[in-house]
Amino acid sequence: MSYRIITVSRQFGSGGRSIAKELANRLGYEYYDKEIIESVARQTGFSEEFVAEKGERAPGKTLFSFSFDSMNAVPGVMGGMSPGDYIWSEQSKIIRQIADDGKNCVIVGRSADYILREYDKVLNVYISADLEFRKKRIVDLYGETSEKPEKRLKDMDKRRSLNHKYFTDMEWGAAVNYDICLSSSTLGIDKCVDILEGLAKG
Amino acid sequence: MSYRIITVSRQFGSGGRSIAKELANRLGYEYYDKEIIESVARQTGFSEEFVAEKGERAPGKTLFSFSFDSMNAVPGVMGGMSPGDYIWSEQSKIIRQIADDGKNCVIVGRSADYILREYDKVLNVYISADLEFRKKRIVDLYGETSEKPEKRLKDMDKRRSLNHKYFTDMEWGAAVNYDICLSSSTLGIDKCVDILEGLAKG
Repeated sequence: MSYRIITVSRQFGSGGRSIAKELANRLGYEYYDKEIIESVARQTGFSEEFVAEKGERAPGKTLFSFSFDSMNAVPGVMGGMSPGDYIWSEQSKIIRQIADDGKNCVIVGRSADYILREYDKVLNVYISADLEFRKKRIVDLYGETSEKPEKRLKDMDKRRSLNHKYFTDMEWGAAVNYDICLSSSTLGIDKCVDILEGLAKG
Repeated sequence: MSYRIITVSRQFGSGGRSIAKELANRLGYEYYDKEIIESVARQTGFSEEFVAEKGERAPGKTLFSFSFDSMNAVPGVMGGMSPGDYIWSEQSKIIRQIADDGKNCVIVGRSADYILREYDKVLNVYISADLEFRKKRIVDLYGETSEKPEKRLKDMDKRRSLNHKYFTDMEWGAAVNYDICLSSSTLGIDKCVDILEGLAKG
């Protein structure tokens, strides 16, 4: 069977985004990543930075974010929801609109696998990589920061995992929740794209 | 790159064993599954049933199995180890012997991925499937029992997961611990074999 929508969840620094982009390119599919953040920002009036940040942090998981979220819940515009929940809700609508649009596409992150769980011909992919590969990659791509690469990776893994769990009640990165999971560090980025391209074509 | 050893971990009822067997067949690789249990049984003097059972149950995880294991630890033959630890140790030796033999092979289960973690050209595969697929499959293959299929699946998942964690300290079924994870229920058993065959050939 061929797939018209491919969702790509990925560990930070695994090259999942590059794989998704190259896959969309080879297949001639639309590619959605930052475009979703931009749409959500336009729709909600929040800044893109705020939407990106909220998209990876589970609301209510720390005292600070809980208080902050509650304080900012504005009845009316956000229907009594916290900014985090409101962004999730708007983001879900946008992802479903993309799917309803009928164009073939690759969607990176943002729990699209869960949001589109009732849709047909969706291939859910997860890309992981070992720590050394990811450390090297984030330093090469985003440069050094005052925080050590291990710490940045650990923090981001935790955020994405908590966020996914909070909104979907599913384990992020558990093989059973995806159609295919690939390790980019052992298979190589090109090989990952080859496998997914073959699979998408059916 | 091509792979000379393929380890296949699988959820009970996922068809992982059939995938591994067909893969070995297509590639012309040796196939090891029950053969390992038979060797361990010969080596240790335990029955095949006992070896199979111990291979999927973590020792010391319940009061009963802990007491039982300790009571049966015989200094000398088993070097003071519990039967479970002794079987693990002998099984590890046999799996390493298979790898050292130099023949291309597919090995099913028994934490071979962990045991061979220092070897080159090893592809570690995990096969999962959704609950409905697995329920149907175990009833078709093994027949009805007094225990409901859900219960049998849940018990076996728990055993394999605890056993793997006990001996390897790794999460069974976490994508990050394998090179490739495939869902046989969504992709289909044949497609899983196709993907792995392509990958093994490099």
